Amino acid sequence: VTVVAVDAMGGDRAPAAAIEGALAAARMGIEVALVGDVAVIERELGRIGSTPPGVRLVHAPDAIEMGEHAALEARTRRGSSIYIGVQLVHRREADAFVSAGNTGAVFAVALLTLGRLPGIERPALGAVLPLPAGPTLLLDVGANAEVRASHLVQFAHIGVAYMRAVGGVAVPTVGLLNIGEEPTKGSHVVIEAHAALATSGLRFVGNVEGRDVFAHRADVVVADGFTGNAILKAAEGVIDVLFTELRRVAANSLRARVGALLMRPSLRAIADRTDYRRYGAVPLLGVDGAVFVAHGRSDPRAITSAIVTAARATERGMRDTLAASVGAMRKDVNDEGITRLESRGPA
Amino acid sequence: VTVVAVDAMGGDRAPAAAIEGALAAARMGIEVALVGDVAVIERELGRIGSTPPGVRLVHAPDAIEMGEHAALEARTRRGSSIYIGVQLVHRREADAFVSAGNTGAVFAVALLTLGRLPGIERPALGAVLPLPAGPTLLLDVGANAEVRASHLVQFAHIGVAYMRAVGGVAVPTVGLLNIGEEPTKGSHVVIEAHAALATSGLRFVGNVEGRDVFAHRADVVVADGFTGNAILKAAEGVIDVLFTELRRVAANSLRARVGALLMRPSLRAIADRTDYRRYGAVPLLGVDGAVFVAHGRSDPRAITSAIVTAARATERGMRDTLAASVGAMRKDVNDEGITRLESRGPA
Repeated sequence: VTVVAVDAMGGDRAPAAAIEGALAAARMGIEVALVGDVAVIERELGRIGSTPPGVRLVHAPDAIEMGEHAALEARTRRGSSIYIGVQLVHRREADAFVSAGNTGAVFAVALLTLGRLPGIERPALGAVLPLPAGPTLLLDVGANAEVRASHLVQFAHIGVAYMRAVGGVAVPTVGLLNIGEEPTKGSHVVIEAHAALATSGLRFVGNVEGRDVFAHRADVVVADGFTGNAILKAAEGVIDVLFTELRRVAANSLRARVGALLMRPSLRAIADRTDYRRYGAVPLLGVDGAVFVAHGRSDPRAITSAIVTAARATERGMRDTLAASVGAMRKDVNDEGITRLESRGPA
Repeated sequence: VTVVAVDAMGGDRAPAAAIEGALAAARMGIEVALVGDVAVIERELGRIGSTPPGVRLVHAPDAIEMGEHAALEARTRRGSSIYIGVQLVHRREADAFVSAGNTGAVFAVALLTLGRLPGIERPALGAVLPLPAGPTLLLDVGANAEVRASHLVQFAHIGVAYMRAVGGVAVPTVGLLNIGEEPTKGSHVVIEAHAALATSGLRFVGNVEGRDVFAHRADVVVADGFTGNAILKAAEGVIDVLFTELRRVAANSLRARVGALLMRPSLRAIADRTDYRRYGAVPLLGVDGAVFVAHGRSDPRAITSAIVTAARATERGMRDTLAASVGAMRKDVNDEGITRLESRGPA
């Protein structure tokens, strides 16, 4: 049975949303370990009433807040739900850890506790975009504000391994986020990465522009964490604006209101499909263990979805597939590919 | 009378779209100089039938294509419609130049011919986002894939001047695109720029995340051209996906189809409002003259809108306002602010 450790104290709506979401996952046959202040969790379970089988409590006296310095502090606060949850994965008492808490804190603790997969210099945050034509994994979406070309190539390898293991894509395609289609476009980091990806053995489709990211031009799109984060949040912002506008026009015209009422199920389906949070949490890719961060604003449904994603990833052998892919990559990326390119210096 | 030079040969739908768009602008009282192969333009005018007064033809035997090397070649092809159009601005025979042609080519020729405003090291491309809560100018959206902190501060000054002159905002607010709200977030370039903007005398609201760009958190948002371009194109991509999905659900369900029919005028209004191309072209900010690039896929309506934007900018004194603002900025940005910060080196 797959065991997923869940941060009961993480997220804007914790502990209620985290616990309710975990119970729903347990009812689907996933064993969950709720990590947090046991007194708080038990009070919440009492309020809810019935606890399904397969729910275990793991006490963590401390909880990391969402603020600025949390990521740094998290490394030393060994009583926190994040620290103890990641420890469960490290000691193989859980197959995966899911938290809607501070992303930076989860990242820092996972890196410290689990370490990196061999050959991966910089783990990345991935976001699986639920596009109509199929999912696209965008990475990095915020862990590395500045990258070197070798990091982008490593992101590609690890992203491909994830989409193979979890997305079920046999030979995922890879795109390089850039501001034009030509190999000579962009910063010198992406120009260098383009050359390295072209000879990486991966199914590289070339540069992908911001627009193409949402047209499923590739299964995996690699970017520095600054740009990836900006794109992901911009997409959220645009969707917000459009749905707000839809509500506004519906409020101002009878005709539009009747139309909106009739379209409601379809609009809701679109809103759900475009909500990447529903499609499971953001994987931390490159650490030696399965750790997923859910959106801070996750509701119970989003938490359940994150737990299901984590469990499915485990069952599909994410850990072994990633380790194997990264093992196969090492020589290619670190010894021949990038080292040679980087010795040329900036173009 | 305001004279706008229009590239008759630029854009995917040239010359027809450019010429039709220019004629519509001329009917609104703007004098237009159509720049291109006169034989081609005359044939097109003959096809259309009636030419309103205030339309002048300027012969350019050559036309720059959309391909890869156009930007480099454009500097030397002095018979091109882009070169001759920019020359008209340089010689003050036109107040502004509008082209739907190769952005890189227009940029290169404008930089070469018009030069930079004093104190501006790197001109930028700006995009005015037509948000429900008010327009936001995002810059740079693609001219500078890599920037220094001083460039970001210069973008802020010139963006503020543009929004004051053209947007009619008395004291525009400025945001710095970043991946978090805290001043210590992001790459060391943005951390440095944050510190410099905080003491720049501008109305700096701090960091703005990708999501906030579309929530009108600031009148001007500055970013490196790589990220700005990615955000802008991502927004286009997301809008495409959502409207495609709307059409798909409307095709698959009678209920949704009736709803969509009733909502049609409202949906079309939203589609129009979110189409930044309608709201005029992208200004080249920092060159000494008014040059605007329209989207390559511009239809006649988009070209007209671009010409109107260019004419309005001229009438509102864009050139003088920008020169004055940049003059006032110089000491602040180059002597005290950034130089001192940069001497510290990377954080």
